[in-house]
Parts: sequence; structure tokens; C-alpha cells
Amino acid sequence: MRFRVNSTLTYQVIGPSTLIFSIHALRTVSQQVVKESLDITPGVKTDEFVSGSGESRFMRLVAPEKIDLLTVHYEATVVTHCTVIDAKDLERVPVQYLDHELISYLFPSRYCQSDKLARMAWTKFGSIGNAYERVVAITDWIYENVEYVSGTTDSTTSAYDIVTLGAGVCRDFAHLGIAFCRALNIPARYFTGYAYRLVPQDFHACFEAFIGDRWILFDATRLVPLNGMVRIASGRDAADAAVATIFGQAQWLSAEVSCETETKDFQPLTRAELGKRGVCLEVRP
Amino acid sequence: MRFRVNSTLTYQVIGPSTLIFSIHALRTVSQQVVKESLDITPGVKTDEFVSGSGESRFMRLVAPEKIDLLTVHYEATVVTHCTVIDAKDLERVPVQYLDHELISYLFPSRYCQSDKLARMAWTKFGSIGNAYERVVAITDWIYENVEYVSGTTDSTTSAYDIVTLGAGVCRDFAHLGIAFCRALNIPARYFTGYAYRLVPQDFHACFEAFIGDRWILFDATRLVPLNGMVRIASGRDAADAAVATIFGQAQWLSAEVSCETETKDFQPLTRAELGKRGVCLEVRP
Amino acid sequence: MRFRVNSTLTYQVIGPSTLIFSIHALRTVSQQVVKESLDITPGVKTDEFVSGSGESRFMRLVAPEKIDLLTVHYEATVVTHCTVIDAKDLERVPVQYLDHELISYLFPSRYCQSDKLARMAWTKFGSIGNAYERVVAITDWIYENVEYVSGTTDSTTSAYDIVTLGAGVCRDFAHLGIAFCRALNIPARYFTGYAYRLVPQDFHACFEAFIGDRWILFDATRLVPLNGMVRIASGRDAADAAVATIFGQAQWLSAEVSCETETKDFQPLTRAELGKRGVCLEVRP
Amino acid sequence: MRFRVNSTLTYQVIGPSTLIFSIHALRTVSQQVVKESLDITPGVKTDEFVSGSGESRFMRLVAPEKIDLLTVHYEATVVTHCTVIDAKDLERVPVQYLDHELISYLFPSRYCQSDKLARMAWTKFGSIGNAYERVVAITDWIYENVEYVSGTTDSTTSAYDIVTLGAGVCRDFAHLGIAFCRALNIPARYFTGYAYRLVPQDFHACFEAFIGDRWILFDATRLVPLNGMVRIASGRDAADAAVATIFGQAQWLSAEVSCETETKDFQPLTRAELGKRGVCLEVRP
Repeated sequence: MRFRVNSTLTYQVIGPSTLIFSIHALRTVSQQVVKESLDITPGVKTDEFVSGSGESRFMRLVAPEKIDLLTVHYEATVVTHCTVIDAKDLERVPVQYLDHELISYLFPSRYCQSDKLARMAWTKFGSIGNAYERVVAITDWIYENVEYVSGTTDSTTSAYDIVTLGAGVCRDFAHLGIAFCRALNIPARYFTGYAYRLVPQDFHACFEAFIGDRWILFDATRLVPLNGMVRIASGRDAADAAVATIFGQAQWLSAEVSCETETKDFQPLTRAELGKRGVCLEVRP
Repeated sequence: MRFRVNSTLTYQVIGPSTLIFSIHALRTVSQQVVKESLDITPGVKTDEFVSGSGESRFMRLVAPEKIDLLTVHYEATVVTHCTVIDAKDLERVPVQYLDHELISYLFPSRYCQSDKLARMAWTKFGSIGNAYERVVAITDWIYENVEYVSGTTDSTTSAYDIVTLGAGVCRDFAHLGIAFCRALNIPARYFTGYAYRLVPQDFHACFEAFIGDRWILFDATRLVPLNGMVRIASGRDAADAAVATIFGQAQWLSAEVSCETETKDFQPLTRAELGKRGVCLEVRP
Repeated sequence: MRFRVNSTLTYQVIGPSTLIFSIHALRTVSQQVVKESLDITPGVKTDEFVSGSGESRFMRLVAPEKIDLLTVHYEATVVTHCTVIDAKDLERVPVQYLDHELISYLFPSRYCQSDKLARMAWTKFGSIGNAYERVVAITDWIYENVEYVSGTTDSTTSAYDIVTLGAGVCRDFAHLGIAFCRALNIPARYFTGYAYRLVPQDFHACFEAFIGDRWILFDATRLVPLNGMVRIASGRDAADAAVATIFGQAQWLSAEVSCETETKDFQPLTRAELGKRGVCLEVRP
Repeated sequence: MRFRVNSTLTYQVIGPSTLIFSIHALRTVSQQVVKESLDITPGVKTDEFVSGSGESRFMRLVAPEKIDLLTVHYEATVVTHCTVIDAKDLERVPVQYLDHELISYLFPSRYCQSDKLARMAWTKFGSIGNAYERVVAITDWIYENVEYVSGTTDSTTSAYDIVTLGAGVCRDFAHLGIAFCRALNIPARYFTGYAYRLVPQDFHACFEAFIGDRWILFDATRLVPLNGMVRIASGRDAADAAVATIFGQAQWLSAEVSCETETKDFQPLTRAELGKRGVCLEVRP
């Protein structure tokens, strides 16, 4: 699939600030960034870096002084190659065989308190044999028990809160999915990206579970086709992959995001179409 | 300093289990493992690995079936080289100059909700200029406001809880120190190790703050000299560096730990002796 | 029904202490205390009082000094008269018609944060028309989603925690039932008493919901027949009706409780037997 | 002191709703309501009632259907008589001598989790001998550690949250004061009223602690003179004495409040003027 993605973020910078952005499309084996551009007005110093594990591309922007209107515009053309895998090949990898780099994805994190959700996870999903079906059951439960309502949660809301609140946005749906997976000894990580057919257009978040030796994409919101995602970053949770983290005195003003396909006859792969198949957007060779 | 460290952990394994241990002394530029041995009774499969960033050495143990008494015994002779640095050289590194590998140590984590403690951190410590003095003020505040009481907290207790509870153990003291540092844009990480002169003998936890381009060791408990530590692991918080993480059905039974010095005339460096100097146990060259 | 109830509580009193007990069977229109005795060893000063609204009988005990073993023994013969009412007569009373004394039972309390559970309550139970069926659905949900496990909760655990924890004891089941009812504008209160056929024998807690102009008894634990209860106290939640509240330095040592019937052919009214009928233990004429 | 108080509240009623208001000045031995009027536009059914313990006067308003603009206007002339008492007469009343009606003010409530704040209360204030000075120390601590910032908290925020958040409004300051008092076995209750010299004009909340056989008024916000208060209601916490509790579908639109004195030469009694004296606004003879 070929996508054109765009994001325009504006800030008011009140005093010296450093901002760290996750808005660049990641370059991976399954995702080519054919063309991209970054425009920042007024011009300020930036640097870009990839996190140690290759999961995120960060851009650091240094605003040395007051800027009434700082505009960050990113634009790219990206080609993605999803792999579709049969559920029967998506068994859980026992902890004893897990590559050691995956082990930290079993640990609880700021927004995914898998330790506190362990009993609930085992009671609700522990008896489901196949790992793919187990994670699908998790996303179904979230979809049925959490209502998508903008403005009900904020940047301090965690998976633990969502269970009782019963409402949230994509980030909260993802955190709860991750927490349940980890509680069941399935490595899980946060995925943030651009998403085709998301209404209204915005950055999107969902999650990946490591089953059958691959990171399989899951989205409990059911808002977009799984093959319509363009990866920006992965991480333990939103703390690692926030669209923007502000150090200093700056105020977010607005965001405009778009994701269009240049592929004719785009065949959306939603969970319904997929049936017992999973979608993977490989990061490493 | 030369130390002999020992730990004996016993478990009852009820069914197939995998355990991941952080009990090995880490090999770093400032810490030589002169000699070490690991005995596991009955013999089971293990493998050892170093985490991507070189901060932790894990041992994975696979118990394929019921074991009434699993004993893990580790023993090592370790030579450490602390560096002592003047407070005036320990200034905060602004986020714009931070090495990108350090940025994740600014983010909140499972047990260190720096986002929720931000106002408190800035109100109490925000006006202190020098970074070293700022972190010392943090440890002083924790020492004065949190009582060291075994059994008041458990594995779900976080820095956020400790403020109001006003009691905890070394792990809780460390989490709160880390959370305050991160809230103030100072990278901070969890340190777990063997500790000379800890009474009663046990594994110990404290924290490191990245100031003056180094990871400086701080211990809000004031229980041990800072140059009496032997590093096992570092991590975002206890989730990354638990002594043992159990996957499966195993039950912890007992732990015996010791840390003795083989250095004659050991000169303890406590905060009182140190005055305006910090202690560093370098990990990387 | 005629019951013989007994309770023996022992404490170690370390220094001057006042203890407030809720262990006396309440005297109400539907509950006669035929015979009762209270023995305290060693003898200390006590007084007894009924709370303003007639819902609780408290006994205050003053231990002026150290007592190695304080024993409180209560024994009574109690005759109760349950009323059984058809579900069709158990409609919700709209707030506009509620007696004003009931209104405080709509407000959130320490252990029943109905405000935080409102969305969940409305989503899960809001569409059920008849009030009796609504409360039955609440108790069914609790029974299915919360496991009865001693030792999983403590005196700080609240309804809010229970949803995610998924485990608790009778007190926790009651708190969650109350919180859901209040969230749905149904007055609800905590009930504590002796319970026939409770295994193992202990004090019991359940809750009452005000529907059809009466306080109807509900028990989400399904552990005892609803007509096997002897009321000790009612209140907003366990804060109002704890078995014992200790002011000073005293330590609980042991409790022995029993509740036997002297009624031949006791016909247990469990939810299954009741079908669409509710049980009421009237307090006021 | 003679005050003229006013409040105008407006709501949009979307569907059938019942609203319960605490806006009437309470009639007590120390507070005469010389004149009062209530205007509701459009006219709807209301009833008024005093809570069992005489602490609150509620007005219940029934809006049977959609009302685009419901206006509730209350106006009164009130004469209050404060008693000023020396700190030396304000000793703590041991629980063994407390009137039984006061005991429920020792229990934790929705917003005042005195059980969870017990260690903190004893550590910080436990060594202060005189009860009045102890409560003053509590209010001083709150004043110094909690910043008054509108919009930082909401209707779910409790005393427990405020400690770590370090910010809040009058209601939060009151809740924390109450929680600390109860933790120290001092009965404490929420006070809501009109307040002279409050800037900007609004309803106000503070708290009363029962010491020296009286309810003494304390205000950790230091925003108003203690003799400038006109009592609307008391209660366990804001759950009992909310300005308005909405049952049904109504939306708060606006509130305008004023409190002016008709007393010439009003002598404000702030904590500074009071020194070691307390202020009491008796409710009962």
C-alpha cells in the first residue's frame, strides 16, 4: 500500500523549550519512506535519532526563546507491506523461548499495569488456548466494555483506570490491550502511527502482541483497517511514543493530520475481513 | 574496593515455570567480576543474557516440572572503582544536549509516575540551582518524610502511593527519588545491587541521576555507604530489575544475601562524609 | 425464624484505648431480641447507644490501661420476621418522591464511590426497567466477576478497587453493590449481621436497596439464605458499621462467631428459591 | 454580624430532573435568618427539608420536563453570632467522652480517607499537645503545601489525591483538613456557606473540628475572615453538602454569588488576628 501522510502541529513557545516529536514515518523492512519533508517555521535547531532498538524515530527541536507561533509540518510518501498470517501459526511463545530483547515487553509500564490486572486477565482470557484468539478476545472485550469518547481521559489515564471508567480514546484502548497481554505472558507494545480512513483524521494508537514469533497488529477500537496503518513508533506505552513531549514552557495549539492512500483498489483488512488471520508490519529483517 | 557477595534463593516450583533473575554482579568499566559461581539444585536449564543497553545481566531458568525445593546460589568476588566528583561539576544537562539514549529515563514508568508528581517536584525542589544539590534535597526530603518500615508496601506500590503513605522500603525510596528527578527533567534510573553494611543483609535498591554527564548514585534510605554498592542491574524502575520475575507457578520461599568487603580500611562514603561530592559507578567506557 | 447468635472477640490492649463495637443484634419491628448477654473480661466500663437514625446499636468499651487479654463475649436469642415481596411491587422510587431521610443513601461514601462508577453502572444496568431486576442484575454481575477470596483485600479496599481486582470478601461484594445502586439513583446501604449457614462462621455483610418503598436485602456472595440474617447494623458503608473500631493501642487477636437456628424446618430463601421476589427485614414501623 | 447573601444559579434542563440544593442559610442558635426569598423561573415544584441532625437545609426542585433556562435565585438577610474561645479551653475530647452523635465524624468518608492518611497525620501532627494548636498546624501545613488553583481538581478529587497533587480549591483544602483531624481522632465535618470578602465571590467551603466540646471553624485557604461566614450546611464531606446535586439530565450553566455585610465596622477575625483563639458558630443550643 502507498500512503501520503501529513501532519501540521502548532505551538506557542513561552520560554526556552525543547520538544521531542514522534511524527516521522519509521523506516523498516516493511515500510519504505519514499519521500519526506519537514518544515519548521520559524527555523530552529533540530536533530533526529532512532532509538537503540530501532523502534522509534525521534525529532528533537530546540526553541531557544519565545515564539508566538511555532509550526511543525511533516509530509511523507510511504509504502507499506503487510504480511497476513494464519491464526494457527500464531501460537504463544513460552517465556523460556522468547528472545531476550522481548522480555521487557512483559513487564508492567506507566500506563499498562499488567501486575494489577493479572487476576482479571487470567479469569477472562486465561482459558483460551490459541494465542491469536486470546488476543482477539481481549480486543473484543475492550471494544464491548469501553466506549470511545473524546475528552473522558487525559495524559495521566492508565489501563487500570480504563477498566472502571469504561471510556477512553485510542491510546487508552491500546494501553488496556497491552496490559492484558502482558498479564498473560504475551509480550505487547504500543504502536502509534498515521491511519487511513480514521474519522476524524488524527494520529492513531493501537498495539502489537508478539505471537508466533512476530509482532501482530491489533486495534480494539475497530476504527480503521489494519493494513491502513503507517508506523511512526513503537514503545512500551504512550510514555515512550508520545506525539510530542514538551520540556520547558510551550503550549500546544493545534494539530492537523491526514493519511491518504495512493493505492487504487485498497482492500481494507478489518478484523471481520481477516477472520482467523493476523496482520504484521515487520520492523526487523 | 573488593567485595565478596553471596545470595541463596529458594523456591517451590508447583508446575512448569520460567524464572528470570537479576542476581549476577554486572560487568562494567568500573566493576570487575573477578570470580563467580552459580549453583542450581536440582540442575535445570538456564541461559544468561545482557540487556540491549548493557545495564542488566539476566539469568533465565526453566523449571520444566514440579520441584519441591529449587535452590539458586550465586557467589562472586567483585572489584569496584567509584569516582568521586565535585558538586560544582554536577550540573543538570539540558534536554537539548542529552544523549538520545538517555531520553527514555525522563519518561514516567510503572512505579515512577513523574507526570503525576510534577507540580510537587517543581514546588519543593524547582528553585534549587545546582543539579547535585537539587537531587540531594530530594533524597533529604524522602528521608525526612518516608519512614523505612518493612511490610508496609508490596510489589504494586508506586512512588505516587509513597508520598501519602509515608512509609516503605528501599525500593520505594528509590522510586520516589526517580520520579521527582524525572519530573524536574533529570534522567534517573533504578539501581539494584548488593550493599556492604546493610543491616539486615539483603538485596538493596537505590537510584542514579544523570547530572554533569554521569550517572551519580543516590540513596535516600541512608542505610549504606555509597561506595559499598555492587551493581546487579539498572533499569527504568523495579519492573526492569526485579531480583526474580516468575512466569508460571512457583513460590518464593527464602532469600539469604551477604556482602562482605575484602578491602582493609574500607572508608565508607556516606552523604555526610561526601559533603558536596557525588559518587559514580561508571557503566560504560 | 428464631436464631441463637454468639460472638467472642479477643484483643490485646497495649495502652489506654476506646473500642466501638457493632456486635449487638438490633431491635427493630421485624427483629426481637428475646434474650441477650454481654460478658467482658476483665470488667471495664462500657456504654451502649443507638445511632440517631435507629440503624445501629453501638457498644463503647473503655480500656483505661494495658490488658493482656480482653475478651468480649456476646450472646443472644433473636426472632426475625422477613417479609417477602413480589418483584412487580419493587419499582424504583424516583428521587422526587424519596423521603428526605433516604437521600444521603444516594451519595457516594468512603468505600462506595458511586460517582466514579456511574458510567459503568448505566452502561451495564441502565436499560433494565424494573428496579428489583436491576439490582438482581447488579448482584449477578458481581457474583460472576468477583471471586470470593479471603485475604485479597483489606480495610482500605473500596468498590472502585474491586472492579479491577476481581476478588474480595463479603464486605467488598456489598460495597460494589451499593455503589452501583447509588450510581443508578437507587438508595443503598450496608448491612452487617450474623448469618445462618455461613461457612466458615463469621460476621457477614451484604446490602439493602430501597425499592418499592422498602429496604430490600441483596447478597451478591450467594453464601447464605436471605432469611438467615440477623441484623447488627446498617450504615452508608463499612466505615459506619465496622464490627470494631479501635481508638488507641489495641490489637485484634481472634474472633469466633456462630449463628444457629432454633426454628425447625427452616426453609432457606436463596435467590434461586425467591425467583422474582425480594426479602425485607423492616427496621421501622 | 449582619449579612446580605445572594445566589443565582442557572441550568439547562434537558429532560425530567430532580435537583437537590444546599443554598439556604441554615437557621441555628447562632444564625438568624431575618428575611429570605427564593425565586424559581419558570415556576416548578419544590420542597424544603432539614436533615435529621439539623445540619443542613435542603431544597428539592422537580423539573418535570425540558426547560431551556431554569433560574434559581435565593436571597437572605442573616445575623450571625460568633463565639470566640481561648485555645487553652480547646482540648481534644477523648473518644470515650464523645457524645455518640459525634462518632460518625471520626469515620472516613468519600472525600476524606482518614484511614489512608493516618500515618502521615500522626507523623506530622501527632506530637502537638493542645488540640487547637494541632488543628492550626494542620491548616498551616495545608496552606503551605497546597496551592489554591482553580481548575486543577474536579468533583471526584479527594483528600488522598490532594496530598500528592499539591493544588486544589476550597473544597479540597477542607477535605484534607477533615481527613487529618479524623485520623487523629478529632471529629471533623465539612462546612459550606456564603463568605464575606471572598474574592472572587462564590460559595465557600471550610471545615469544623470538634474540640473543647464545640465545633470550631477552620479555613486552611486563609481567604476569608472566620467571622464572615454564613452557614448553609454541614456534613461529612462535600458529598453531603454539595451546592447542587443533579438527578436526571440537567446541565449547570452559571452561578453568581454575593455576600455583603450590613454591619458597620466589621472587624475581620482572621487566623492572624485570632492568635490562640478559636471561632465557633454554634448550631445547637
